[in-house]
Amino acid sequence: MKRIGKQTLEFTTPPKIESHGAIGGKKEAGGPLAADFDQTFQDTSLQTESWEKAEAQLQKEAVAVALAKAGRKPGDLDFLLAGDLLNQCISSTFGLLDYNVPFLGQYGACSTMAQTLLMASVLVDSGAARRAAAVTSSHFCSAERQFRTPLEYGAQRTPTAQWTATAAGCAVVSTQGPITVQKGLAGKIVDLGVKDPANMGAAMAPAAADSIYQFLQDTGTGPQDYDGIYTGDLGQVGTDLLYQTLEQNGLDIRARHQDCGLLLFDCGSQDVHAGGSGCGCSASVLCGHILNRMEAGGLKSILFCATGALMSPTSSQQGESIPGICHILHLTR
Amino acid sequence: MKRIGKQTLEFTTPPKIESHGAIGGKKEAGGPLAADFDQTFQDTSLQTESWEKAEAQLQKEAVAVALAKAGRKPGDLDFLLAGDLLNQCISSTFGLLDYNVPFLGQYGACSTMAQTLLMASVLVDSGAARRAAAVTSSHFCSAERQFRTPLEYGAQRTPTAQWTATAAGCAVVSTQGPITVQKGLAGKIVDLGVKDPANMGAAMAPAAADSIYQFLQDTGTGPQDYDGIYTGDLGQVGTDLLYQTLEQNGLDIRARHQDCGLLLFDCGSQDVHAGGSGCGCSASVLCGHILNRMEAGGLKSILFCATGALMSPTSSQQGESIPGICHILHLTR
Repeated sequence: MKRIGKQTLEFTTPPKIESHGAIGGKKEAGGPLAADFDQTFQDTSLQTESWEKAEAQLQKEAVAVALAKAGRKPGDLDFLLAGDLLNQCISSTFGLLDYNVPFLGQYGACSTMAQTLLMASVLVDSGAARRAAAVTSSHFCSAERQFRTPLEYGAQRTPTAQWTATAAGCAVVSTQGPITVQKGLAGKIVDLGVKDPANMGAAMAPAAADSIYQFLQDTGTGPQDYDGIYTGDLGQVGTDLLYQTLEQNGLDIRARHQDCGLLLFDCGSQDVHAGGSGCGCSASVLCGHILNRMEAGGLKSILFCATGALMSPTSSQQGESIPGICHILHLTR
Repeated sequence: MKRIGKQTLEFTTPPKIESHGAIGGKKEAGGPLAADFDQTFQDTSLQTESWEKAEAQLQKEAVAVALAKAGRKPGDLDFLLAGDLLNQCISSTFGLLDYNVPFLGQYGACSTMAQTLLMASVLVDSGAARRAAAVTSSHFCSAERQFRTPLEYGAQRTPTAQWTATAAGCAVVSTQGPITVQKGLAGKIVDLGVKDPANMGAAMAPAAADSIYQFLQDTGTGPQDYDGIYTGDLGQVGTDLLYQTLEQNGLDIRARHQDCGLLLFDCGSQDVHAGGSGCGCSASVLCGHILNRMEAGGLKSILFCATGALMSPTSSQQGESIPGICHILHLTR
């Protein structure tokens, strides 16, 4: 691969997305993208004893579905790249343990799908892997009790709050497949001082603006060169801030932009306030809706720009702001 | 790069460790490796307001020292690869925020130094990076209150417990430098059912045995082919179990093996029970003691086998066992 401009990588023997799987929970199955999931669970405990174990199961299922669709078995994978929002990424560890595949834990908060896919692409392009899987997950109930309050408290949510998706997505990357990973960009940590953990969209928007602007600069392209520019989970508040920030830099992406957090749920009827969020949000929208549309021919060239908020409850309690990050992949059919 | 055997990568335009930095706290400065640290702090709060902020500062200092020794500035880095033990890896985020370098968060628990160095080497070897830094940290006080009990409780430690190092290590990888990264191996998650969070060495030993055995098989080499085989932080209990497990597979590594957790502290006089641990343990021993000895000529060819326990307090409270992982790098002068 080669470097273009300041931050962008261009894959020279471009890695391909061989197959992909999207798993969702009950609310996701009741949303606008229901038909794009490979599997949904009406029982959000997935018949496990805890929300954390349920989330691990989501990740396990996502890999199983993606492998099955490619006609592959776990032994065909040289690496599993995964991460999640739970402390010490236990959904990934316990969800993927049984696959017995070399494991590289990634932490990018809600940007994890883009990060794992970027690293899997680097491994395949460089010859380090013949085939690698990128996977991540989130679960509304495990995220609420870890990051906010246990569900049993019945806490009220602010209008800027987003709803953590109960979902997982997995993409299998190899040298053959219908979708090509053309380019990638690893984002910088960007912190403009937002401190409200109930407004993640605002915290992540500056990072999305920074990475999108840099990618377009590096590649000498504009929004019109893509059929879609998909951000991870900025939700309504973050999306508005992204438009404002890019406009200050002379860029208008409105005609091409969609946000995974606004696609996954119907904000009005599903009571999710500012939109969806969580690693599983952009992961399942990419590995379901977006890649399905690309394969069906509706989309030829897109940017997948997953965003993450690199905070913890401890950092917020200690008065720290919420730094964001955004990694980008350019995918074509 | 090319693949050898089942799991090993051989770097074909081998990446080099251009420089390295090791930072330690008060106890580390009083241990056998005191002279190998580039910087030590008698005030383990590093004049910050919290243990978490102190740990972030350790990481910041490690990168600063490594860059300074190479005569480089942050802008010379194409990527920062980092991770740590704190929930959502906040030491890395807040410690490295100001460097303004594309960031890829890695989570391998105490194996993080090997994982970040492996990924940095892949990025440099493939041409994705001209220069990348691998860094990680741990802090006794932040780890105790997050994983066990706040220090103020004065809890007693079991004989199998290990002492989390207050330390950080950073290696700068590029195409020039005195140390060559020859090969690497990403480990599988290995779980033999150990459930005692006060006996991490036992939990991680099977993963170390698995990865070391596989690396030697893949490369057709034996322990005698290396000047040193350094495990991450198995401590006394884990080291004994590693020997037993490898012997059952016909391998005796005793003559070449050392454990970073047993090198960093004098277990007898420093009251650390079974040895040192934490991401910062193997990171600072590698980026101080080991690389110093390689540069001075005492060691020509070593294996660095950092181990991690992929658990969280939540997973242990829910009755899960403690899966381990071990990533390996083969370094030569």
